[in-house]
This record gives sequence, structure tokens and C-alpha cells, in this order.
Amino acid sequence: MTPVMKNAHGPRERMVHSAAQLIRRQGVTSTGVREVVAHADAPRGSVQHYFPGGKEQLVGEAVDWAGRYAGSRIARFLARIDSPTPSRLFAAMVRQWTDEYRRYGFAAGCPLAAATVDCAEPSPGVRAHLASALEQWRRPVSAALREMGVPARRSAAVATLMISALEGAIVLARVEQDVRPLTTVARELAPLLDSYVVPA
Amino acid sequence: MTPVMKNAHGPRERMVHSAAQLIRRQGVTSTGVREVVAHADAPRGSVQHYFPGGKEQLVGEAVDWAGRYAGSRIARFLARIDSPTPSRLFAAMVRQWTDEYRRYGFAAGCPLAAATVDCAEPSPGVRAHLASALEQWRRPVSAALREMGVPARRSAAVATLMISALEGAIVLARVEQDVRPLTTVARELAPLLDSYVVPA
Repeated sequence: MTPVMKNAHGPRERMVHSAAQLIRRQGVTSTGVREVVAHADAPRGSVQHYFPGGKEQLVGEAVDWAGRYAGSRIARFLARIDSPTPSRLFAAMVRQWTDEYRRYGFAAGCPLAAATVDCAEPSPGVRAHLASALEQWRRPVSAALREMGVPARRSAAVATLMISALEGAIVLARVEQDVRPLTTVARELAPLLDSYVVPA
Repeated sequence: MTPVMKNAHGPRERMVHSAAQLIRRQGVTSTGVREVVAHADAPRGSVQHYFPGGKEQLVGEAVDWAGRYAGSRIARFLARIDSPTPSRLFAAMVRQWTDEYRRYGFAAGCPLAAATVDCAEPSPGVRAHLASALEQWRRPVSAALREMGVPARRSAAVATLMISALEGAIVLARVEQDVRPLTTVARELAPLLDSYVVPA
């Protein structure tokens, strides 16, 4: 979740990425558009130019980015697993976070959780982005589970369980400043997740 | 999580409760001490009087309150279950949230998650409160699991799994504005949770 943005990216892309990175560290309220411009090393006036809808548009696009990013990781995880199983996919999803926390500390969480928790009533605009970002993440998890032999009628529920357990364990890991909640959910859920597979 | 405070409570208790309620709706950053004073219907000057450490102290005590509250609910849930099992306890923990969301909408989440997510680097003071509040919640869950026959060496891990899945499903429910993620994790985890019980 802390990919380095290539210099090839233009200021618009860098601003969306910077907004996501700042939101996942400090929430939406504390993240000002000026801070995003500075973090992205974007020219002054970029917000008005690229995001005429202001902070709300920027937050919405940051949420979209986070959903696409999380969704696109699933294919990458699968590509690295020799014989994919639900528990191995979940372990890879969890490992992304234990790797980050071991390397960089516990300062940041998931941008979707931050954008959800840090506003009582997100504007209808941001709310639609949150729901669609979650789907961008859950859909490839669910599709991967079906590929592995999880019945189609169960796959969305199992994906919801995996994402819920991961999101919660991220919060607990930050509370404890320890990766243990993450490694615990990966280990404890493994047999259940693999039990959904119906042999072909 | 929306208990009505009795009028018998003094301004100090009301302010701690109001802080927890506001934090779980809007996060820490957006919650100002003046708003807490107004929400608690407390006299001006109450913060300086009762919380010489200011907002940080108030947030820390709100977090403590949330941990004690979540912990104390566990005994109440157990008292209402005829023959307690891990899955029935988890269902009761989840039902508290589906009841709230069906009745009051999705505006609020868990104060512990809000206080964790909405500050990149909580002060060491608040961080200690977060860790101890999580323990105040996990310890009675873990103790209840042992009572039900979950081996002592597994009970803390199972409690971590339950709390993680619940915390994550709360976030997903707010994203979807639907209780389904909560009912999904309760249903899907049930067989795993009961499988930890070793018959006496």
C-alpha cells in the first residue's frame, strides 16, 4: 500500500495517490488540499484545475484509487502462488500488511476504512465511491475463490469474511503496535477458508 | 453502543460519554472539546476543571470508557444465552451492531477504531489507552471462551479473530449502508468458532 509513484505520472495522478496516502495515515478531516498539493509536488492551483469539485472530488478519487489498487493486487498475489487456495490468497493479502508494518511501522491503515470512519455522514458522492471501491476489491477476491472451487453462491460471502477480518486486524495491529492480530486471523481462518472448496 | 446516560451521572461522566459518542460518529480530529461540553450539557469551564490534560485526556478517558463498556457487555450477552457457545456469543456481539444500525442508521462505528484510524501517530498517552481498552474487551471474551471449553492456549487468538471480524464488518456495513457484512461474518464464522470447543 505504499507503492512508489513513477515520475512518469502527471500531477493529477500524483495528487490522487498523495490524497490516498495522507488519508490512510491521518483520516479525511486532517487532510487538507494544500497538504495534498505539497505532498504530490504539484503546482499551486492544481486542485482547482484538476478537481473542480474540490476536496470532495479528490477524496472520492482517492477512494477509487484505493479500491482499484486493492483489487489489482489480487491478480498479483495469485500469480505468485503455485497452487492457489483460499487460505494462501488470504495469507498473501495479510502479508502485504505485515510486511508494511514490519518495515515502516504502524502509522497507516486502509484508506477505505479511514474515509468511512472519519466522517459521520460522508456526502452521497463520497459514499458512492466507498461502495464502488469495496466492490472493486471484493469482486476479484470472489472471482478468485470461484476459480479455486468455492461454490458461486458462497464466494461473495467468503470474500466479505476475508476483507472484514483483514480490515479489523489492521485496526487491532495498529492498536497493539504489533502484527500479531494479522498473523492470528490468517492462521485461524485458514482451515475454514479452505473448507469452502468443493473438490472438482 | 448508544446507551442513554442517566441524569444521575455527573458532568464528568457525561463528558466522557459524550466524547466517546462524538468520536465514534466523526473521529477524533473533528471532535472539539467545546462540542463535547455542549453535547454533555456540562457547564463551561468543565474541561479545564475535570480534564486538566485537555482534549488528550478526554480522548483517553473516552477510549477507556469504550473498552470497559464493550467488556461489560460480554457478561450481559452471556447472561441472556441459555447454553453459551462461541458462535452464540459472537452472534450476540454482532447483533448489538445490527440492532443499532437497523434502528439508528449507519452514522456511528466503534470508538476504538475511530480513535485508532483518525490519527497517524496517537500520542503515547492515547495509545496506551487504546491498547488497554482493547484488552478490557478481549479479556472477558477470552475468559468466556475458556468457560465454554475452548483450550486456554487458543482462547486469546479466537477472541482476536472475533473482535477483528466484528470491527471489519462494522466498517463494511457502514460502507454498504447495509447490515449484511455483519450477518455474513456471524454466519460464516459460526462453525469455526464452535469447532474450538473441546468436549469436557
